[in-house]
Formats: sequence, C-alpha cells, structure tokens
Amino acid sequence: MNVSSSEIAFLQFCIENNMNKQTLIQTHNRIKPFIHKTPVLSSSLINKMIGATIVFKCENFQKMGAFKMRGAANAILSLSEEERQRGVVTHSSGNFAQAVSLAAQTLGVKAYIVMPENAPQVKKNAVKTYGGEIIECEATPQAREATANQIKEDKGATFLHPSNQKEVIYGNSTAAIEFLEEQPNLEVMITPVGGGGLIAGTALAAHHFAKNCKVIGAEPKAVDDAYRSLISGHIEMNSSFNTVADGLRTHLGDCNFPIIQKHVEKIICVEEDEIITAMQLIWERMKIIVEPSSAVALAAVLKHKEEFKNQNVGIIVSGGNVDVRNLPF
Amino acid sequence: MNVSSSEIAFLQFCIENNMNKQTLIQTHNRIKPFIHKTPVLSSSLINKMIGATIVFKCENFQKMGAFKMRGAANAILSLSEEERQRGVVTHSSGNFAQAVSLAAQTLGVKAYIVMPENAPQVKKNAVKTYGGEIIECEATPQAREATANQIKEDKGATFLHPSNQKEVIYGNSTAAIEFLEEQPNLEVMITPVGGGGLIAGTALAAHHFAKNCKVIGAEPKAVDDAYRSLISGHIEMNSSFNTVADGLRTHLGDCNFPIIQKHVEKIICVEEDEIITAMQLIWERMKIIVEPSSAVALAAVLKHKEEFKNQNVGIIVSGGNVDVRNLPF
Repeated sequence: MNVSSSEIAFLQFCIENNMNKQTLIQTHNRIKPFIHKTPVLSSSLINKMIGATIVFKCENFQKMGAFKMRGAANAILSLSEEERQRGVVTHSSGNFAQAVSLAAQTLGVKAYIVMPENAPQVKKNAVKTYGGEIIECEATPQAREATANQIKEDKGATFLHPSNQKEVIYGNSTAAIEFLEEQPNLEVMITPVGGGGLIAGTALAAHHFAKNCKVIGAEPKAVDDAYRSLISGHIEMNSSFNTVADGLRTHLGDCNFPIIQKHVEKIICVEEDEIITAMQLIWERMKIIVEPSSAVALAAVLKHKEEFKNQNVGIIVSGGNVDVRNLPF
Repeated sequence: MNVSSSEIAFLQFCIENNMNKQTLIQTHNRIKPFIHKTPVLSSSLINKMIGATIVFKCENFQKMGAFKMRGAANAILSLSEEERQRGVVTHSSGNFAQAVSLAAQTLGVKAYIVMPENAPQVKKNAVKTYGGEIIECEATPQAREATANQIKEDKGATFLHPSNQKEVIYGNSTAAIEFLEEQPNLEVMITPVGGGGLIAGTALAAHHFAKNCKVIGAEPKAVDDAYRSLISGHIEMNSSFNTVADGLRTHLGDCNFPIIQKHVEKIICVEEDEIITAMQLIWERMKIIVEPSSAVALAAVLKHKEEFKNQNVGIIVSGGNVDVRNLPF
C-alpha cells in the first residue's frame, strides 16, 4: 500500500480530533453530578440595542458562582485514588480558590489554598465556608509559587492550575457544550479572557460540537496581554493590572495558548467605562448579578454592534462573585 | 324533590368555585402570549440555613421586571374593542405604571399614567420607555384621584387599579398557577403584601390548583396594615410609610380583602434590618436582583425558621426594579 505522509498526517489528525471530542464528552459526563446545568437567558432590550440575537449562558448561577467549578471538579475527579488521599493545592485569591475548595469538599479531598496575606477577608471567608485550608504567603508571585511547592513536597498534594492545565480546560469546555446543545445555531461565542482557560475550553467545544461557530475573546484594554499575544505569536505579559475586571489580570499559559492560537478568531479590547456600562446594563435589564469580568464580553459586542448585526451571538457569563456593597457604578 | 337550603348553598358554592377555576385557566391562556413563564430557582445554602426546601418563583425576570405585568395584561385584554380605543388610565409611580404602559403599548392601546410631580426621574423615564403618557399632579391622594378622574371623563379612558380589581387579581394569580404546575408539592406559598393584589391572586390559585397549600403574607412591621386588617376584620390604614420596601406602602381594598380573609392563613411582620439582610442574602447567594419588597417574604421565613422546618416552601419574588446605584446595604 502506498500512503503519502500528508495522508498519514490527515489520518492522525482525524484520530486525535475524534479522541478529543470523546474526551470532552467523557469530561461532561464525569462532572455532571457535581455542577449545575446553568440557564440561558436573554433580554429583548439588549437584542434591540445591538440588532442581534444575544443569549447569555449564566455561569454566575453555577455552584460557588462561577464557571471555575467545572474545571476544578474535572481536575479533582481525574486524580487517582491515591492522589485524592494526599489532597490538592492551588494558589488563587479568586474564584478558582473557591471552586477547588468546594469541589474538593464535595469529593472528600483535602484542599490547600495558597493566598496572599493581603487578600480581602471576604475572599478568605468564602474559601473557609467551602472547607478549604488557607495558607497565607507574601503577596509576590515568587512567594506564592514557593509556598505551593512546599505544600506539594510536604503533603504530596497535587497542584491544580486555575487555567493552564488540560483537565481544567476540558472541564471549562462543558459550559460551551451545554450552550451549543441548547442553542445549536450560535454563529459566534464570546468569552472574557483572563488566564485563557475559559476561552480555550470554549474554543475546543466550538471546534468539536458546533457546525460553524466562531469564538471571540473579550479583554480589558488595561490588561490586553492575550490580544498582544495573538498578534506577536508568543505569550505576552501585562505591565499594569489596573482594571475593574479583577478576574482578568492573569496571563495566558503554554497549555492554553496553542489552543487559542488555533481556534480563536480574535480578541476585542474594551475600555473600563465600557465594562462598567455593560455591567450595569446586565444588572438593570436582566436582573442578574454578574461580576465585572463577565461584563467585558457584552461590552465588546456593544462596542462592535455592526460586526454582530443579525447574528446569533452567545455570551458566556463567567461568574457573579462581587462585593455588592462596593460596586463600580 | 326535597332539597334543603344548605344543599342548595353547597351546590351554588360548587358551581361558583368551578367557574372561578375556569376563569383563572382562561386568564392564564389569555395572557400567556404577553408574559414570560418565569423560572423557579433555589439555593442549597438558603435551604440549609432554614432546614427546609425553599423555591423562588422569579417574577423579577417577568417583562418590565415585576409580576404586575400579569395583572395589567389581563385587565387590558379584558376590555372591549371600544374601550381599548379610548385607552386606559392608572395612578402609580411604581411597577404598575410600567406594567400598564408596556401591556398597553404591546396591545396598541393608549396608556395615561398619573404620577406625582416629585416622582423620581428614573421612574418617569421607565414609563416613557414603554410608551406611557405621564400626567403629573400634586403629590397628594386627592390630586391623584382627581387627575385620573379628569382623564376618565376627558378621554373616556378605563381606570385600572394596581391591586383592587378582579381582572388584575386574576392576572396576578397566574404566577402561582405556574408555580404550582412546576412544584405541585408546595405546602405553603409566601408573598409580600402591599395593596393585596398579589396575595389575593396567589390565594385563589392555591385554593383552586393546590392539593393542600397554605398561603401566608409577609409585610414590613412599619406598614403592617394587612396584618392589622386580618385581626380587626376591616381594612386598616397605615399612619407612616417608613419602609425600605417601597412597593408595600399601599393598603388593601374591598375587592381583595374578602379573598385574603377567606384564603390567607396569616401575615408575618418583619423588621427593616431583617428585610435588608434577606435582600443581601438573595443577591449574594442566588445572584439575582430583587427589590426590597420581594425580600420581605424570605425575611419572614428566616424569622420563623422552626415553623417552616422540613416543609416545601414557595416564595413569590415580586420584582427586581431597584436603583442599583442606591442600595440599602
């Protein structure tokens, strides 16, 4: 038999592609008992403002209030029995800390959460509520990593990364899988971009489960590392972190960046006042509580109305954990 | 045939009872195209706090953001073609003003909304957005009634009452009908009590559609007119209106009071701080925006945990129209 190398490459691609689709399906089935199937909402006023059909996948209604529960649950469920007995460790002062704590508690696994000592008390309390053990460290990336490594060594705990780990990305993909099941005619899905774990998962889901659905990222201009990374072709860093969208201050990683490069159409950047306006619009018109990071996606659509005109647009609302006594509007 | 008077009375009751049930079914079918079937949500944390199964019928997601859309739509749909051509008039600076404006606009009917000249601009704007024509008057009950009467005379418009009119009460009942369809095992339904239109509709729905479901009202202690009315047996007034639950400052009417007397178990009164705590709990844990009036029902359950222990409790969330830049917490 005479087979060319390009034919072999194509066959390999087909096998891998199918395997990945199976992996996502298995992931979804694995985590289903531990997550909510969140609702899809819409607002006729927002549709009218944009001249398109905008639907919102509401992960603010997810357990612990954010999509992070999906990735955390999958990462812990993917551990061996022995690994589970030794516990998990992560460094996060945001939603991933709560997600790991809750997923671990639900599965009877010990969770060590490394947090900077100056993290807000409200965030520490949330982790404690879900049974996570907080280990404080100095507020530097070096101290954070050193502390997490120490726990890995001392306890044999498995490190879970908030966004740059394939089990987390696969878990995150299930939000888009559910979205596409309910809205098979979506022409574009938009997610906020922080560490890149949500958009990478969404892009995989669109690739495997959608007929023809683009994936676009939305990012605050103040922390536009992903926007610049897609242009330069390597992972760029942020030099300032001055955005109201506190969940999006992180940068991409080597595990999610190739997926984003391959499957994400582009990143749209928005200004701070556009984020706050979009957030208030969602609160007032949709009567749901979303965090500033989630509003970034609607802000991008509002900014580029013409581009989305008459399209079926799906926005993934990443979460709803916000201090309601300290709002930006 | 020898029929006793008590047998005749019983037969009359049966016929009337069945007619009323048919009326409610017809009402629901009539307004269905003009309302949202709102979702039922729950929070495992709130269930745990109370030790009961609490489900929330979310009328904050209703069109224009409150259950009032149901009554307004039914009242306008019940008009003759001739009456519709002459328009409708109401006096309200709250949710009913918006509901009448939107329902009228949808049905091509002119809506005249009498509002006190000192009503907040945000409320005037909302009415204008929905196409209602605002007629300002002095901020007294006398001026309000006189102005509405003048419009009735001048335009031949039909007056719609926010809570004390049977078409409005029947319309309101459809929230509880949907609730019971989805949650047939509810043992108690709780609604806030202002003008009495929601609780009267809910009580009718429970009477006709539930197997055995009590209806309880929740009211701010500061405006406890309904609580006192049920005790004294006649409609009591409030002497002060100093509550954060601004939708509940009105008093009962002769059309809804007899229904409340007959079918409502009791009214629970709550303090202002209890309302605010319950509101913040719903915002933070359920990630939904509810107005203070809606939080009164959960505040009542939180205050009397023991009474509701292990029960299936349904709370009707009346609305979500609140100035997000001016919150009580």
